[in-house]
Parts: sequence; C-alpha cells; structure tokens
Amino acid sequence: MAETMRAAVFRGKEDIHIEEVAKPECGPTDAIVRVTTTTICGTDSHIWREEYPVSNGRIVGHEPVGVIDQVGEAVRGYEVGDRVVVGAITPCGACYFCQHGDFSQCAGYDDEWGLIGGWRLGNSADGVQADYFRVPYAQANLAKIPDGLSDEEVMFVTDIASTGISAAETANVRIGDSVVVYAQGPIGLSATAGARLMGASLVIGVDSNPVRLEMAKRMGADVVIDYTQEDPVAKVKELTDGRGADVAIEALGIQETFENCLKSVRPAGVVSSLGVYGDKVTVPLEGFVYGIGDIDIRSTLCPGGKERMRALMSMVQAGRLDLGQLVTHRFDLDDIEEAYPLFSNQEDGVLKVAITTD
Amino acid sequence: MAETMRAAVFRGKEDIHIEEVAKPECGPTDAIVRVTTTTICGTDSHIWREEYPVSNGRIVGHEPVGVIDQVGEAVRGYEVGDRVVVGAITPCGACYFCQHGDFSQCAGYDDEWGLIGGWRLGNSADGVQADYFRVPYAQANLAKIPDGLSDEEVMFVTDIASTGISAAETANVRIGDSVVVYAQGPIGLSATAGARLMGASLVIGVDSNPVRLEMAKRMGADVVIDYTQEDPVAKVKELTDGRGADVAIEALGIQETFENCLKSVRPAGVVSSLGVYGDKVTVPLEGFVYGIGDIDIRSTLCPGGKERMRALMSMVQAGRLDLGQLVTHRFDLDDIEEAYPLFSNQEDGVLKVAITTD
Amino acid sequence: MAETMRAAVFRGKEDIHIEEVAKPECGPTDAIVRVTTTTICGTDSHIWREEYPVSNGRIVGHEPVGVIDQVGEAVRGYEVGDRVVVGAITPCGACYFCQHGDFSQCAGYDDEWGLIGGWRLGNSADGVQADYFRVPYAQANLAKIPDGLSDEEVMFVTDIASTGISAAETANVRIGDSVVVYAQGPIGLSATAGARLMGASLVIGVDSNPVRLEMAKRMGADVVIDYTQEDPVAKVKELTDGRGADVAIEALGIQETFENCLKSVRPAGVVSSLGVYGDKVTVPLEGFVYGIGDIDIRSTLCPGGKERMRALMSMVQAGRLDLGQLVTHRFDLDDIEEAYPLFSNQEDGVLKVAITTD
Amino acid sequence: MAETMRAAVFRGKEDIHIEEVAKPECGPTDAIVRVTTTTICGTDSHIWREEYPVSNGRIVGHEPVGVIDQVGEAVRGYEVGDRVVVGAITPCGACYFCQHGDFSQCAGYDDEWGLIGGWRLGNSADGVQADYFRVPYAQANLAKIPDGLSDEEVMFVTDIASTGISAAETANVRIGDSVVVYAQGPIGLSATAGARLMGASLVIGVDSNPVRLEMAKRMGADVVIDYTQEDPVAKVKELTDGRGADVAIEALGIQETFENCLKSVRPAGVVSSLGVYGDKVTVPLEGFVYGIGDIDIRSTLCPGGKERMRALMSMVQAGRLDLGQLVTHRFDLDDIEEAYPLFSNQEDGVLKVAITTD
Repeated sequence: MAETMRAAVFRGKEDIHIEEVAKPECGPTDAIVRVTTTTICGTDSHIWREEYPVSNGRIVGHEPVGVIDQVGEAVRGYEVGDRVVVGAITPCGACYFCQHGDFSQCAGYDDEWGLIGGWRLGNSADGVQADYFRVPYAQANLAKIPDGLSDEEVMFVTDIASTGISAAETANVRIGDSVVVYAQGPIGLSATAGARLMGASLVIGVDSNPVRLEMAKRMGADVVIDYTQEDPVAKVKELTDGRGADVAIEALGIQETFENCLKSVRPAGVVSSLGVYGDKVTVPLEGFVYGIGDIDIRSTLCPGGKERMRALMSMVQAGRLDLGQLVTHRFDLDDIEEAYPLFSNQEDGVLKVAITTD
Repeated sequence: MAETMRAAVFRGKEDIHIEEVAKPECGPTDAIVRVTTTTICGTDSHIWREEYPVSNGRIVGHEPVGVIDQVGEAVRGYEVGDRVVVGAITPCGACYFCQHGDFSQCAGYDDEWGLIGGWRLGNSADGVQADYFRVPYAQANLAKIPDGLSDEEVMFVTDIASTGISAAETANVRIGDSVVVYAQGPIGLSATAGARLMGASLVIGVDSNPVRLEMAKRMGADVVIDYTQEDPVAKVKELTDGRGADVAIEALGIQETFENCLKSVRPAGVVSSLGVYGDKVTVPLEGFVYGIGDIDIRSTLCPGGKERMRALMSMVQAGRLDLGQLVTHRFDLDDIEEAYPLFSNQEDGVLKVAITTD
Repeated sequence: MAETMRAAVFRGKEDIHIEEVAKPECGPTDAIVRVTTTTICGTDSHIWREEYPVSNGRIVGHEPVGVIDQVGEAVRGYEVGDRVVVGAITPCGACYFCQHGDFSQCAGYDDEWGLIGGWRLGNSADGVQADYFRVPYAQANLAKIPDGLSDEEVMFVTDIASTGISAAETANVRIGDSVVVYAQGPIGLSATAGARLMGASLVIGVDSNPVRLEMAKRMGADVVIDYTQEDPVAKVKELTDGRGADVAIEALGIQETFENCLKSVRPAGVVSSLGVYGDKVTVPLEGFVYGIGDIDIRSTLCPGGKERMRALMSMVQAGRLDLGQLVTHRFDLDDIEEAYPLFSNQEDGVLKVAITTD
Repeated sequence: MAETMRAAVFRGKEDIHIEEVAKPECGPTDAIVRVTTTTICGTDSHIWREEYPVSNGRIVGHEPVGVIDQVGEAVRGYEVGDRVVVGAITPCGACYFCQHGDFSQCAGYDDEWGLIGGWRLGNSADGVQADYFRVPYAQANLAKIPDGLSDEEVMFVTDIASTGISAAETANVRIGDSVVVYAQGPIGLSATAGARLMGASLVIGVDSNPVRLEMAKRMGADVVIDYTQEDPVAKVKELTDGRGADVAIEALGIQETFENCLKSVRPAGVVSSLGVYGDKVTVPLEGFVYGIGDIDIRSTLCPGGKERMRALMSMVQAGRLDLGQLVTHRFDLDDIEEAYPLFSNQEDGVLKVAITTD
C-alpha cells in the first residue's frame, strides 16, 4: 500500500487545505525531500484567490527547506539525510534556455518553452507545502545547507531573495550608483538589500506601510519615501541632482509603480522589473523619452539552481544578508489554512510566515 | 562685414527653404566644416511636418560630410582641408553621461541632462544643411575620412548606420542568433546589416514595400516577410522552431511593430527599440509574459563620437557595409525644397537622398 | 555474449591502432551513438606522441558525427536513428561550473573540478574514433543535425570551430575592431572566421605556410602575414595607425606567439589565448606595460553543449561558415593508423582528415 | 614678474625637495587648483628611488585635494573657490581610448598612445605636491567635493581607492563570490574594500604585516592569512571547498604574488592584476592550466575622470567606504623631504601620509 503524507492542496477560490495524499515517487533524475520548513509566497496568494491558474488538486508551494529522503539512481554526490534547500525555479541545465544562461525560462527535458518557464514546484508540478516533495532535475537543484544555518535563515534564498537581488544584478548596479525600489514587500525588500550589496551609494525605498519602510532601512535603504506623503518621482530627482536614479526597480506589478520607475530614471538608466503584472502596462511617452532615451526595461524571474542557492546562502553565512528577520508569524503545516488569509490579506503586520512540519 | 552662406532654415509647417545667413563662428573647442554632401533624415521630415519642435529659424540637418574650414584654438591634430564626417550626435566626452559611456545622452559642458541628449546639430543648435556648420566639442567629433572613400559611401555612418547597427549591438546579438527587424526603412535596413555583421545566422526583415524588402536581402536579410501577405509573428515562430527570435528590432515607432516585437521574441529574448514614438505604447501582457519572461526592452539613440565614425567607416572601407547603395536621388542644396516633400512622402521609390553644395 | 566493435586505442608512443573492443553500455543519462564520420585533432597528435597523458587502452577521439543507436531511460526528445553531433566538451549542466556558464570546466555529477574540465571523450572517458561511443550527459549534449548538411560540413563544429570562434567571442570583438590571429592551423583558421563573423573590419592572419595563408583569406582574413618574410608585430602596428590591434588571438601555444600577441595589442587590448601550452610562458614587461596597460589575457577551452552545436551548425546552414573546405584527406577507420602520422607530421599539405566508418 | 610657489621637485636618486618655482599657467581647457592636501604614493617612492623615470625638475605627486584658483575660458560649470579633487588619471574624453571607455589609457588631444596612458600629473606633466597645479582637460576632471567631507576623507579616491576598487570591478565580482587579495598595502586594502562592496561573500586578505592584516579586517576582509605562517594557496583552497577562489587580486607586482594568484583561482577564475611589475613575470604552467583552464588575467590602471571621483566620494559620504582611517602620519608641504623616506621605507607603522600646504 502506497505511503501517504499531508499536503496543502488547491481546490478552488480561497480553498487551499490539508489533504492526505500519496507520497511522491522518485524517478532516476529526481530526489525526494522531506520538508522541515516552508513559507507562503505572494504568488501562492494569487493562486489562493484564483487569480493565477493551477489545476484543481495541485499541491502548492515552492520555497522548501528540508532533508533528503530518497535520491534517484542517476543523481550523485548526495546522501539521505543531507539538509538542503531547493530553489523555486528548477532548471534542467540541458535545454536551449539553460545553455544560454536563462535558467528561469528552462524548458526542461521536454522542451516546453514559454509555457511555464522553469517554475515547476507548486505550479506545473506538485509543490512543497507538504511533508515531502519531488525535486525534478535533482542534480542541478539540491543545494546543501552550510552548517550552523537555521531553516528560517536560509528559507528565503529559494525565491524572494533570489528574485529581489536579481533585480539589482540584472540592472548591473555599479559602485556609486543611485537605486530606487518601488514597493517594499518581501521581494522589494530583497531588491533593496541587493542594491546595497552590489555597491550602490544611494538606495531609496518607496512604500506607504511604516513597518515596511522601517524594515527597508534595516535591509539597506539609505532613504525611504512614503508615497502617500510626498511625490516619489520628485523626491528621487531631488536626491540625484535632478538627474534621476541610475536604476529603478519595480517590485509590485501595477501601472503606477511601473510608470514611476520610468519617470524616476536618468537618461540611459535601467528599469528593472520584478512585479507580476495582472494587466498590460503602458509605457509613458516622456518616461520612455519617445524611445530615444537609451532607457532599458529589463524583467526578471527568480534565478534558480543549486549554485545560486549556494551563493545566496554564503551571503547569509557571512552575515551580509539577514533574511530571517522577515519572519513575523509561524504556523504548523496543519494550520496552513489559517496562514493563507492572514498572509494574503496582510493582517497583523505580517511580512512572511514560516510553516513547519513538526 | 560678416560672411554669409546658404542654409536650409525651418520656418513653419512644410516650410524649410534656403536662406542666406551668417556663417557660423568658431569657438575655442569648435571647428567649422564646409559641407560637401549631406542628406535628409526621417527626423528632418518630422520637423518639416512640425511634428517635432525646433525653433523658428533653426538651420536643420545632422548628417554631414565635408572639409575642415577652421579649427578652434584648443583643438589639436586637425588641419584645414581635412575631409571629415561628424556624427549626428556630438558627445562632449566630459559629462556624467559620456563618462558612463552613454554618449548619446550627453549633457554637454553645461550639464543639461535629459533635455536634448547629445543631439545638437539641427536640433538644439544649427545644423548641416548649409554651406558651413559649427562642430561642437570638435576634438571628440571630427572623424577623418579614409582615403578612397566617396562622400556617399561614408555619409550614412553619421546617423542611420550608427543607429541601425546599434540596435544589434545593444541587443548583444551572438553568433547563431535569430533576429527579426520590423520595418525596412533606412534605419531598419541598417539594423538588418548590423544583425548580419554581428553573426546572426537568421536575419528576418519585415516590411510591405517590395523595393525595401529587396534591399533588405542585399543588406543581409536571409528571409523577408511582407506583413500584408502573412502574419509576421507566426512566421517568425515557424522559422525558429516555435521558440521565437532571440532578438527583435523595432525600427518604426508605432504600437503595432512594438507589440509584434514583444510577441516575436523567445522567453528571455531582447526587444531592441530604435523607433521614435509619437505616442505612448502599451506592453501587451502575454508578449511581456506578465513581467516574468525575462524579456528586455532596450532603446537606443544614435551612438556618436569620432571613434564610432572611424569604426563604421572602416567597415565601409573593408567592403563589409555598402551604404552608398541606399542613395536613390540627388539634389543640389539650392533645390532642397524639392527634396523635402519627395523624401518625406516617400515618392518615386526614394530610399535616401544626397544633397550636394557644388 | 557482449557485442564488439572497432576502436582506435592508445597503446604507447606513436601507437594508436584499431582493436576489437566491447561496445559501450548505455546508462540512464547516456546515449550510444554510432559514428559515421570523425577526425583527428592536434590534441590527438599530442596523445599519439605521448606528450599528453591518457591511460593505456583508452579509445581516443572527440569530434564525432553519427546516428543515435540507444537512448538512456532518463533522456527525452531523441529517437534511435537521429543524426547528431556531440561536442568535444560534454557539460553536465548541473555543476558549479556549468551553472556559472563555464561549461568547458564542467566538473560533472561527481564534482571533480580542475582535473579534466569538461573534456571527457577520448581523454578521461573513451572516445569516438570507433564504431560507437557513449555520450555522457546526453540530454545536454546530443545536437540534431539540420536536414541537408553533410557529415563533413558539420564535423568541425564539435571542436575546432567552437574553439576558434570562442577566441573572438571571449575577446568580445566589436564592429570595426582590428584582430590579428597568430598561427593559421585549423583552430587559428576558425578564429579568423570568428573574428570576421563578429564584425571586425580588419582581420590579420599570421603563419608561414602558404597553403594556410591562402586558406586564411578564404576563411575571412583581410591581410595575411608570412612571419618569415616580415616582422608581424611591426606590420600589425603599421596596419593600425601605430596603435596596435584591438585583439590578438594566440592559436599555437608557444612563447613566441604568446609574446607577439602581447606586443601586437593596443593599450587596453585583449589577448585571447587558445593554444595548449607545453611549457610555462613569460609575460614580457613591455608587452604587458608593467601591468598598467589595462591588457587582458583571456584563455578559452572549447565551448560545448548541444545549443553551442546548434548555433554553429546554423551558421553552416546559413552559408556563413564553410568548414567542409578544411578536409584535405579521407580515410576509412580501418586505416586510421596511416592517418595519424600523416596528420601529426603535417605531410602532403594536410589541413584536416575525415575518418569514416563505412 | 611671474608668480611663484613651493613645489616638490625630483632632482635625482632619493632627492625630492621643495623648490620655489613658477606658478603654472592656465590654458583654455585647463584649470589651476590650489592644493590643500595631498599624499605620497608608492609610485612616488619608485620615482624617489629612481626606479621609475621622470625628467629631472619634474614636480611630482598625483593625488590632490584643493580649491579652484583659475578656470580656462572653455571650461564651464565651475567657479573659483570650488573645493575639488582631481584623479591621478586625467582622461581627455575625446581620444580613441576614452571613446572606447579605456580612460586610463587616454592618449590625449595629441594622440600619444601607449606612451604614458592617462597618467599625466607628476609623470609626463607637473604634479600636485605643490601649492598649485594645472589640471589638464579640466572639464572632464574637476570633481566637486560634497559638503561635509574633509580633505582626508576624500583624498584617496584620486588613486588608491579608484585603483584598488577597479580590481574588483574589472574581475566582475558577483554576489556570493570568493575573492583573495594578495598584499594589503594601501592599494590592496582598497581592493579588499572593493571586493566586499561588490558583494563577495568571502574576502581573504594576504600579507605578513600584522598592522596591515588588522586593517584588512576593518576594510572588509572576512579572513586574513599571514603568508609567513601558512601557505596562502593551500588555505584559499581549503576555504573554497578545494575549488579555488573565483577571483584573485594581485596588489604588489612581483612573481610570487602573481603566481600565487594563478594557483589560487578556480578553473575559469579571474586574476585581476594591479601591481606595477618591475620585471617580467612567468605564467606557471599548472596555474594557467596549460592555457585551457579558461583563466583570465586582467590588468588595470587607475580609472579617472570626474564621474569616477563623484561615484567614489558618494560611497565615502554614504558611510560605505572609510578611507580616512588609512592616514597614519601628517606633514606640512615644507617637510615633505622627511615624509619621503618615512613612507618609502615603511617606517613607524606608516600606511599613508597626509601633506598639507597651510
């Protein structure tokens, strides 16, 4: 008789709850990981609200910390019992996109490009808000956790930190640059940290939530702007000798922040876009300088792969990146039904939740 | 008594005509060049139609070939009589933007950023459709013409070739890439040439004008698409195994081509935008993959500076780039009033005109 | 009873001969390819001369064209009978190096870094001068051959073309650059082609062999220099206004050409090194400008992976890259013992040999 | 009668002393700056020892902080009395090299390439250890000092900080990288700071001087190695899982440290070289992996220009870069004869000296 386990399953609008399901099976290039800690992402909230489509019955979640339970026969260098994280994006390492370095858009062994990118866990395949999950392309995606780091310290490298920091990397932030980050949710906060880590001399965080603005300072912002109190575009110009920021990072996914980014950058500046847009956006004529301002708009999905995970965990270990401070609430997996509305509706000052299986 | 000269002066809608005006004076960092050949650009047509604002009385034109007539006292290494071209964009080499490598957005010695960029000739300063013009920042902008090259062979390096080729450079076209270029006017044709020169293995030109599609093949296109006969996006997908092009170049400046570029590129592809947009453009949701497709939209103005001119003229000299073939009509400066409507209305199969002063 | 096959086996100094050996077995991530055409590389000659160590009994060769015979259970998207090439370098796509984009230094699933890099075939694993060979990490390395291309047309993308062209790519050759390539053997000829394909306006080939200098012109050189007739460094300076080349490519692996590269480049120029050095080399003080000339020395091993193979084959298919013309001699696999001395001693005007199995 | 001033003049081996000389004159593109604070560089020590040649009578020094005294007629945007720094390297912004972004190798308006690069002050032109100095290409080189920063806080951006940090920039240090810096003199310390500022997760400083190793920790090193106590190459390997560092920075200019860099980097790693080599260096065969390790050796001179100065001063202002702590000794210009032997012989625990004119 097949083994079973608990899993958070999507069943419809605002209906994600724990069910007892079959434990996943391990193919030759897979691993099975027992989850110890996971979290809920803004994207999961979109799924919960039925704003982003996944199939009925899908196990959700894509930010796992855990322990290896089984290793596929073709996978080498891992042992049952190894503590690991697996990124939200699971590149295969072999397709057209991976071989171009575009891991996030991985088409997998089946070359299914443009449909789902490299985001499989909790999207096109079952996810990690469960006792166990299957790791596809395990050789490329199992990242061992350095000794001495707790689950909560490393959990956010799997998605928000990788995504947020990539905004600064994609924009090629240079020493002495000025960077403005629109929206200081978990991903925007990570982008703020990323801009600081790459050597910006001026990092500006924009939001209206005082808790988030305060956290922005702790994550690396030199200046914060409450956009309900002052015009952020005007303030950015003032802080940059009238020139505009070298880089503007969009971390929300709506017209207003997208447009403010374009209005905030200097000629030949870069808009680095992280937000998941629910609707088409319009490029304002002057912000885009009629197309002749040498402006770049670069969009980024979350970089994955075990080396990305290693790099980010090494930053945590070195004390450069304090991600654990983003956890404001903790739940047992059995109580994840309570965690979804709390997180999705931003109740009780929540930033991020930790979901544990014990 | 001041010397005078002939010059094409903007006086209002569809009114650019020759007037006798004062010959320009040479400041310490300037040069005066006697124009031998020049041309009319699409941007000049916008001015002629009063779609792009320049001051009444402005001498227009920004694509000069000529001979040095005077050299400012601070300028070294040039002699009266040297044959030169000067790019449409005249970087100062000293401002914030130039020192970041963003020459096109040059703010000049007066640090006037974002107003005009580095485009001064025939825009914020008097232009080159005249017997003489003043070269600002002459040390950075006088490019000597290699022996043996005619005016018509080198004239287009000053703007359309520099602009068009920069689209491929900005997109970082790699050996083996597929590139589609939307619109095959003079700038799109140069982009087609640029994609080929950088090593694309598949260059696709899109237009509806049979003369331009034919020229696209001569400039480097492997395949041409008449968008009135077939859906270009579908055809690009078909030619790229369903994946989409690595790079799509926009060379017109309207919503349709902008949108087709986004729809034509593969995940993690690059849209390289050259068009001067007359209106705001909308980013289609699916073309931009909800912001998570790792798509870049990069815009480029014309790179300038004497080294850019040298590099492009060296390509002409080496036989890699045949720009002279774009000249379809020739006029004397005295007859430039006839040339404007012909070129602006695309009459008589015109691609580019040559305007000579003799 | 196990199947057997013919294979060229290394047995000692100047002793590579055909033996009947066991046909390789196919693991879950492997494929078995039946070889139709292969060739001998300069590195194989080093093995033949016992200058480069491989184990006694090793099947040699790393440049295969063939047909898929078996596919491992974890590999998808390939069928028995597909015509394929496999690069000399077989990246796993999953290790530290592959995830950094350094495919050539692939450490494999076993993380054996720095020992052999990604060069397995005919080096740390059995090679392809045989009726069959095993493809490691098959999902990342099987590259289907486009219809209409012959074995000889595509064979050299597996190593010499990939290596040679990478020298230009690593050096980031730009439109209008000047490039000198020292030594016009098969790899140097490919580097010459690469510099031309990326947009150099001046490509200079240096050698003493008239056949190779003539081929250099056909592969893309604008100027060739016979270093026995004139000083190549002085000539390069003369051709570049005294400045030096933007890029110098080393394609031999000895002190003289290495040093000439450093002496040939302009300040802030790039030396792109391809040669396999048999001895330590010395950086001349003036060529390196005391360390303050902003000179880069970049070395490159052959890029591999199926996408690299696709990209290069697409160049062949588009008519941009004529590699078939390098084949001067043809042998049956049974006669490979004759081919080794002929190729290794550069007898009879040989450039490259084709070895066929039928 | 011409105005005179004090200046430190080179007169022979170990003979740099104060003389009364003519105050410099201001050409149209120049400025005259009254020096308030300057320092002595390792290169000045080479001059003092007659190891690096400058003409007899040359005013030495290239790291000035001061106040504008005169502005040339072609220079705009500056006022007499503005507090400024000027980088050791003074790019013209107009030559072949500047337009390629290679400011340090600037050939100037006279196109004198490869002779002196962009290092003019105290080398090919008179320097700044004086009451006044002439700023060539003033428009590109006068960098205003932000309010609130002292002379000592900004002085080192002119050379050592720009040079040291450029080693990390040239090597493209990425978030999560490991970097080892060989030698922790003032430039090595700045390189250590640069690696940290760009996001390395492991910065290793190597030296034998305990004071410098202690300062290395304050500038950003996570680990320091006293090479007299343990083998630095072995230790670097141990700290990087046996792989080697991603980047090794050479900051001394001798065979031993150059060779240790090559031995310390991983396959496909980067050696970033800052040292001024007094003799040719040898590339060890194994460290260079026979030329097939994808190793890069990149050398860098000090980046200059006013925007570089602005960027670095903005880091000081933001509290990211504490350069003032490197000043250990202070002298009046009149006493510079005492400062030279003290600094050059590394007496009394000196790191850097400040020379003031009041």
